[in-house]
Amino acid sequence: MITEFAEITVKPGMEQEFQDGVATCQPVFARAAGCHGLELHHSIENPQHFILMVKWESVAHHMETFRNSPDFQIWRGAVGACFAAPPKVYHTKTTIR
Amino acid sequence: MITEFAEITVKPGMEQEFQDGVATCQPVFARAAGCHGLELHHSIENPQHFILMVKWESVAHHMETFRNSPDFQIWRGAVGACFAAPPKVYHTKTTIR
Repeated sequence: MITEFAEITVKPGMEQEFQDGVATCQPVFARAAGCHGLELHHSIENPQHFILMVKWESVAHHMETFRNSPDFQIWRGAVGACFAAPPKVYHTKTTIR
Repeated sequence: MITEFAEITVKPGMEQEFQDGVATCQPVFARAAGCHGLELHHSIENPQHFILMVKWESVAHHMETFRNSPDFQIWRGAVGACFAAPPKVYHTKTTIR
């Protein structure tokens, strides 16, 4: 299992719209092949800053299967207008817990 | 409960030493007031990049109680030499899970 980190900065005033968009899309991730759940973290110091963490079976499940699926368009349609800049996306392995 | 995110870039070749230092310090966090565990995430795309996530009861437990305790010096002594730059640290609330 790997974790997708997406560092997202939203436009001023779009914090709630973004969170509502993520909530609306929970079924999209629930049905995505190889997806094992998500968490949304909201920065205390910078309210425009969020970290979306998504568990995937592999990087390919995220970057190939999901990104090339119609559901990726639904996801970006729900939240993309909130982005102040392209999200910074990377993947990790959890080495200590 | 809040989450501390520390984005850490280590010097080239110090990846293992850093991870060993974090592992050695697990008791430091286990005994810290208001600390409820940590995870270390290692970037797949950039091996020098790590995300340390620590659960705290409040920002003050991290930024005041822990940072002013002798254990903070033990922690920085164990891993500080590995840092390529000062860690980028912020705190979040989990709004969707």
